[in-house]
Amino acid sequence: MDKTRIKIFSGSANHSLAEEIADYIGIPLGEAEVGRFSDGEIQIGIQESVRGENVFLIQPLCDPINEHIMELLILIDALKRASARSVNAVIPYYAYARQDRKTRARDPITAKLLADLITAAGASRVVAMDLHAGQIQGFFNIPFDHLTAVPIIANYLKQKKIRGEGVVVSPDLGGVTRARELANRLGWPIAVIDKKRPAPNQAEVMNVIGEVKNRVTILIDDIIDTAGTIVLGGEALKEEGALEVYACCSHPVFSGPAIKRLKDAAIEEVIYTNSIPVNEELPVEKFHVLSVAPLIGEAIMRINEERSVSALFD
Amino acid sequence: MDKTRIKIFSGSANHSLAEEIADYIGIPLGEAEVGRFSDGEIQIGIQESVRGENVFLIQPLCDPINEHIMELLILIDALKRASARSVNAVIPYYAYARQDRKTRARDPITAKLLADLITAAGASRVVAMDLHAGQIQGFFNIPFDHLTAVPIIANYLKQKKIRGEGVVVSPDLGGVTRARELANRLGWPIAVIDKKRPAPNQAEVMNVIGEVKNRVTILIDDIIDTAGTIVLGGEALKEEGALEVYACCSHPVFSGPAIKRLKDAAIEEVIYTNSIPVNEELPVEKFHVLSVAPLIGEAIMRINEERSVSALFD
Amino acid sequence: MDKTRIKIFSGSANHSLAEEIADYIGIPLGEAEVGRFSDGEIQIGIQESVRGENVFLIQPLCDPINEHIMELLILIDALKRASARSVNAVIPYYAYARQDRKTRARDPITAKLLADLITAAGASRVVAMDLHAGQIQGFFNIPFDHLTAVPIIANYLKQKKIRGEGVVVSPDLGGVTRARELANRLGWPIAVIDKKRPAPNQAEVMNVIGEVKNRVTILIDDIIDTAGTIVLGGEALKEEGALEVYACCSHPVFSGPAIKRLKDAAIEEVIYTNSIPVNEELPVEKFHVLSVAPLIGEAIMRINEERSVSALFD
Amino acid sequence: MDKTRIKIFSGSANHSLAEEIADYIGIPLGEAEVGRFSDGEIQIGIQESVRGENVFLIQPLCDPINEHIMELLILIDALKRASARSVNAVIPYYAYARQDRKTRARDPITAKLLADLITAAGASRVVAMDLHAGQIQGFFNIPFDHLTAVPIIANYLKQKKIRGEGVVVSPDLGGVTRARELANRLGWPIAVIDKKRPAPNQAEVMNVIGEVKNRVTILIDDIIDTAGTIVLGGEALKEEGALEVYACCSHPVFSGPAIKRLKDAAIEEVIYTNSIPVNEELPVEKFHVLSVAPLIGEAIMRINEERSVSALFD
Amino acid sequence: MDKTRIKIFSGSANHSLAEEIADYIGIPLGEAEVGRFSDGEIQIGIQESVRGENVFLIQPLCDPINEHIMELLILIDALKRASARSVNAVIPYYAYARQDRKTRARDPITAKLLADLITAAGASRVVAMDLHAGQIQGFFNIPFDHLTAVPIIANYLKQKKIRGEGVVVSPDLGGVTRARELANRLGWPIAVIDKKRPAPNQAEVMNVIGEVKNRVTILIDDIIDTAGTIVLGGEALKEEGALEVYACCSHPVFSGPAIKRLKDAAIEEVIYTNSIPVNEELPVEKFHVLSVAPLIGEAIMRINEERSVSALFD
Amino acid sequence: MDKTRIKIFSGSANHSLAEEIADYIGIPLGEAEVGRFSDGEIQIGIQESVRGENVFLIQPLCDPINEHIMELLILIDALKRASARSVNAVIPYYAYARQDRKTRARDPITAKLLADLITAAGASRVVAMDLHAGQIQGFFNIPFDHLTAVPIIANYLKQKKIRGEGVVVSPDLGGVTRARELANRLGWPIAVIDKKRPAPNQAEVMNVIGEVKNRVTILIDDIIDTAGTIVLGGEALKEEGALEVYACCSHPVFSGPAIKRLKDAAIEEVIYTNSIPVNEELPVEKFHVLSVAPLIGEAIMRINEERSVSALFD
Repeated sequence: MDKTRIKIFSGSANHSLAEEIADYIGIPLGEAEVGRFSDGEIQIGIQESVRGENVFLIQPLCDPINEHIMELLILIDALKRASARSVNAVIPYYAYARQDRKTRARDPITAKLLADLITAAGASRVVAMDLHAGQIQGFFNIPFDHLTAVPIIANYLKQKKIRGEGVVVSPDLGGVTRARELANRLGWPIAVIDKKRPAPNQAEVMNVIGEVKNRVTILIDDIIDTAGTIVLGGEALKEEGALEVYACCSHPVFSGPAIKRLKDAAIEEVIYTNSIPVNEELPVEKFHVLSVAPLIGEAIMRINEERSVSALFD
Repeated sequence: MDKTRIKIFSGSANHSLAEEIADYIGIPLGEAEVGRFSDGEIQIGIQESVRGENVFLIQPLCDPINEHIMELLILIDALKRASARSVNAVIPYYAYARQDRKTRARDPITAKLLADLITAAGASRVVAMDLHAGQIQGFFNIPFDHLTAVPIIANYLKQKKIRGEGVVVSPDLGGVTRARELANRLGWPIAVIDKKRPAPNQAEVMNVIGEVKNRVTILIDDIIDTAGTIVLGGEALKEEGALEVYACCSHPVFSGPAIKRLKDAAIEEVIYTNSIPVNEELPVEKFHVLSVAPLIGEAIMRINEERSVSALFD
Repeated sequence: MDKTRIKIFSGSANHSLAEEIADYIGIPLGEAEVGRFSDGEIQIGIQESVRGENVFLIQPLCDPINEHIMELLILIDALKRASARSVNAVIPYYAYARQDRKTRARDPITAKLLADLITAAGASRVVAMDLHAGQIQGFFNIPFDHLTAVPIIANYLKQKKIRGEGVVVSPDLGGVTRARELANRLGWPIAVIDKKRPAPNQAEVMNVIGEVKNRVTILIDDIIDTAGTIVLGGEALKEEGALEVYACCSHPVFSGPAIKRLKDAAIEEVIYTNSIPVNEELPVEKFHVLSVAPLIGEAIMRINEERSVSALFD
Repeated sequence: MDKTRIKIFSGSANHSLAEEIADYIGIPLGEAEVGRFSDGEIQIGIQESVRGENVFLIQPLCDPINEHIMELLILIDALKRASARSVNAVIPYYAYARQDRKTRARDPITAKLLADLITAAGASRVVAMDLHAGQIQGFFNIPFDHLTAVPIIANYLKQKKIRGEGVVVSPDLGGVTRARELANRLGWPIAVIDKKRPAPNQAEVMNVIGEVKNRVTILIDDIIDTAGTIVLGGEALKEEGALEVYACCSHPVFSGPAIKRLKDAAIEEVIYTNSIPVNEELPVEKFHVLSVAPLIGEAIMRINEERSVSALFD
Repeated sequence: MDKTRIKIFSGSANHSLAEEIADYIGIPLGEAEVGRFSDGEIQIGIQESVRGENVFLIQPLCDPINEHIMELLILIDALKRASARSVNAVIPYYAYARQDRKTRARDPITAKLLADLITAAGASRVVAMDLHAGQIQGFFNIPFDHLTAVPIIANYLKQKKIRGEGVVVSPDLGGVTRARELANRLGWPIAVIDKKRPAPNQAEVMNVIGEVKNRVTILIDDIIDTAGTIVLGGEALKEEGALEVYACCSHPVFSGPAIKRLKDAAIEEVIYTNSIPVNEELPVEKFHVLSVAPLIGEAIMRINEERSVSALFD
Repeated sequence: MDKTRIKIFSGSANHSLAEEIADYIGIPLGEAEVGRFSDGEIQIGIQESVRGENVFLIQPLCDPINEHIMELLILIDALKRASARSVNAVIPYYAYARQDRKTRARDPITAKLLADLITAAGASRVVAMDLHAGQIQGFFNIPFDHLTAVPIIANYLKQKKIRGEGVVVSPDLGGVTRARELANRLGWPIAVIDKKRPAPNQAEVMNVIGEVKNRVTILIDDIIDTAGTIVLGGEALKEEGALEVYACCSHPVFSGPAIKRLKDAAIEEVIYTNSIPVNEELPVEKFHVLSVAPLIGEAIMRINEERSVSALFD
């Protein structure tokens, strides 16, 4: 690709992240309006020529999710028809990622459907971060660059100078390999929380498997959504004698009661990235945001210049 | 197709229309839940087997449009994966139909994108009604049955026993062939309203082209959206000496100020179908709803039994 | 795209237009033979390497239409297999454009079929001019540049120095927005002709809707085919007191009795472009051809150099 | 498939063959008009419902080839959009079959292009006869039934009661396996004619390879086109002492000078099928037509009833 | 589907399973030869008509994996071209399932590639069992029935009448949800083994997370491949005080040293299904095979008769 | 394409040919491992970035054929996902080429299936040599460069200074045009061998058609597989009085008894290329290998630099 032929556009999902990325790269954000007609239809207006440009379109698929998906698809359609050389969908948070397989009869596989929609709209490439399941890469046949914020989280934790050996805890069975990945970067052991029902008709309990007593514990998940699991997990860890509990995630979905629950929880600090904008004012001593703009910006520059992206994580 | 293997499902867009259609056909609506997770993701649960069934999925793409589109796509995905024999998307109101061509540089063609998304999700057939532009049929390569409510509107007007020869009026240049179609059914002439700007920096005026003086006038459009055009059109007709003004449409989008405008307007009656639910209580003497459930129900039965649908309009 | 890697080829439809375009751009036409075997099969021979070239293939789909379509498809196939970097189908006149939707049961949508054939053959892009319906752009998912000769026609009319305010007239209901477009460029009002049948079993009459008395009138259509509508329209305008009648179109299909009718008609001048070659010698005082070679040539250069094409119409 | 849901339609290429096939099957031909608009566009009108029917469309791709191809494609499009259950393209003569590979740089592969066009238009299946190259079946991914008239030709020759052992001769190198196939059915040896140039700047001569002296010879080809090869081949055989020469083919293309050449040639009899209509009155003692209607009719019935077609050739 | 139109064919991977399935259904296996030409090309011959049949093709993708994959694809191609109504690929063991995402730069995603190959070859449906990752279902857009042998394994374990509460153990982090699934059916808790390296340059150790002392332990995995993990896991469990160790899996890949290791291991019993044939004679007191033929046979019958498959697992 | 952005990788099929090609071009072979896991799954590791590179992947599909096909497909998948600019499959020997059409009912067309698999995996282009049938080019819609070793073979034969006029012989009917091609380059006549069965229940005999007595004969085939045909053909030629017999082919498949047969045969010399590696030590006086590395290397350079490849054969 020609280094000079790059443009960054943003949907309405996370304008400030898009601006931070454009700043990192050192170019202005492309001029485009993404609004609504009176009846709710999405109205877009791209104000500058994209003919022959490598366009990177920044749009995490956060709440309102379906609106942001349709914006993404319509923008891709417009850019493709406007003869962009390539349309690169940069999706820091990929929605519907937990609907990635059939768990009951007649389930949709919405994460795959979404991949097909993005491809049908005409995207040339996808850049995403910390997918709920790595297999989602395989839902696409177009090139896909998968970034991770785990090193950024690990670095932040390292400089906290935690006493002794901590333990990284997966709040559920499905996230145990993610916990192992962070644990490897910190040189720590892992534990896992297994929700189980002690007897029929009894409430589920959080059963900590592994050793956490007298240790600093790091709960890690890809997404904190309603924060129910993470908060109950934190309580269970404390009951088992954990010294401190830190809760980390890449994607702060924070839906419904999440923020209230996290504020009230017996958790020392909640650490997350700006893949999704958190629109509420939160106490900085408990809520810590790490920016992924340099990570994404660097990846975009490497893609545009056709240099290795994987080297970013060596 | 096997006559006995038919199921009707409804998205959340117009449940009462779907029930009316199922009643007409004489079968119960299929059991399915279409809800939302806390973060806004669509959650669906189809409660009965659809293996080998011809499924008809009723979902007009009305407000909130993008939510209803995503529901439609996810339901199609689930039904296809659940081995339905055919998944027939019944879309009484097809959204984004006015974004059917590029009118400015770098416009999307969202009506085509939507066709591609529906096809990519796995629909076998589309049934729609009174498309904004007939060319949208050509956006699809799967079979497409295009119904029209114009005969239903014409029949309603005929039984009003209007004195003398009325005139059918298109509220804008783009709708003039639709006006001709209704006029043919009534045996009347047509007129058309041309918005034009008398001079630069002056407001647009509604210029009636054709003869309306001392006549009953029928304004017809496919969609009444904000009702601005139709209300100004009605005023212009009255200024030109029209006796009465009836405003008809297939799809009562009624967004923003529409309902207030229509209530206040110098229009005798507003006539529309239940392709889109109008959720507000409206005075029945001015607002008249015509049901398209028998039309759609009959079409579905003919499709299921592989009998001619076009014969419906002979 | 690399500015130096451009080649222009011509099918047999309009060789002189292709040469004029190549002249404008300043390169020779690519060497290719497009002939027929004895049995009627198309025989092509491309005499120079096209590997890595941006090839622009000039072929309006004029009479014999089906021969020209097959030539276009076979040339695209040959160029694609010969490793051209891009194969750009330049189709100044897009045939079958009036078959763009189903108007009767079991109609084909041949304009869409043609789009699918061009795509299946392997075209990278389409460049067309004054499509019968803008929605045809949406029949394609490859980039499509839609040019218009309306400014060229408007400029020609402006320099005629018509006295007073003229009126632009659409010869039928479907062309009324095209009339408005030309009218906007001239600052004039519009009128429209509505064919209607006064009573069953009576002949259709041309009913002029709008004011034309004592005015110069400009009939505009995208295509003049058999010239029946335009000639009857001209007569109707004269009967309503029009001073002069000019008939304009982008595409002089001129089939069957067209030329004789136009020669005999009460029309002051017939104005059209060279998108289609008119092979008969016509009296220059009544038949005026405007060249679209500079328009198309300029568009090709901008596409090849990846500069904005829409800027051409600002 | 349901035995009772079958319809036969014909394009304009060989209406009498289509009628003969429909007669064989015992149903009337479907009502459809295939005409032309004044400008040369194909106009079709299908007069009866095809919803849910297995439609068989009879159209050999004979002269005018490109017109017949476009008719075929447009009919397929219309039938598919009219909800036919299956659209089976019955193409007794497949045109462009000799353009099945690149023999020079930048050649198209038109036989493959044609396969892609037929597939893109929406055909469900192809039925063809005596393809120039069997590999053309592989150009399709839809089911393809390949019939052969060789047994019909062999049976006709057998009942001629030729004295002694004849020899089957391929008129060129490419047809030698076809000659072997007929020879196997007759229990005879083969010979082959090799066109070669004795020295540079000398004319090509027909060199008979194999023994033909004092034998009855049967020249066999898939197509007789201009008849040049076959007539020169016949002369060469006579020069080598052949007793009699019969010329057989499946497809009587008979273009340009073919019929005159055949009339004048030293050939006892020309034998061919009605896959292509020969519109000239020919002397019956020298020109013998064999009907393939029972063969094709039987194949269609077996396809419709889902019984083995290959069993036809056991 | 028509109940009577069903045929079962087998590739060469597991002929005895295919026969057991056909027996269950009560029909003979379809006649087909799957051999090799001298050069190693696969040679197939299908000896009976499949026109209009629902064909179920039984082929687990076991060693030699690539040979079995190519057989599967070629058989699908042949069946599709032979006009089978549907070609259902029954793949009890889906190979390359562990290559389902990129774990290093420039990894292939072979599990997705395989899905694309199966789809490109023309399969109508896939039936598989106990996929390594459920997301593989999303790699397909054709209907996919996912069966599980976990209930069969659970039933076998239940009738063993194990004293006290056992514990289900995942031999690695990735399989922990599978362990939970079996544990739910037995009403037991789970544990998990975490391989970790105590210090750089030291060997990995098997770290048991969770309580296993004085309990019967059930190691469960989808695949036992070289058996290294399972055997080391068994040892680790015994070291932690487990009473007995049972090793269960759906797919006995048993490659390389597997069988020797299992024979020698401190494991009471190895339990697996016949999804893959184990060609060695093994001591029945330690190696126990459970047949999945009734499960697969029942699923095939339900698919053929279009009855719910999910109901099998209620 | 950018001249500097080229990388050559090799599968495991013919590493020495790949190295020779890379040498010719003057760049090192790309670093990649192509191995097997214990269970037989292919394991690949590409050790250097290919982002933005034109990658040429050298892999003839020789024995073990199915392993080499799967390697090719997996490598293409990995390179495509690693953002290579183009993935060019260089397949000097294209396997399954003789399965290029249906010769019996229910045959697969494996050569077409293979084309579809290569395309589905994501190849941008194919380079092959001396295909068994030229029509295989048409099985692809991606650009395809077809090379031929016939000039290399002709040049080798020319410098042998054969006395008198030799004759080029096709060992079977299907290869007769290939024989003509070599004969044209040598200025010689041709002959052909027709296998036929003198009477039912008798063995096939090799029947030489054409004149070979007292001439040097050159048997030419694209492939020598088991060498049965070529050896019997050589004997038949000698019986008919041929002076010497040379056997040539492009692709030395040499399966089963081939090498023993050739060693023992009454053939003066066996001439073939290194498209396929022959792993046995063979007597150089009878077995002569011609390298196609310069031919393939030159073609790759021209493709990479977008210069004419056909010019190579002028």
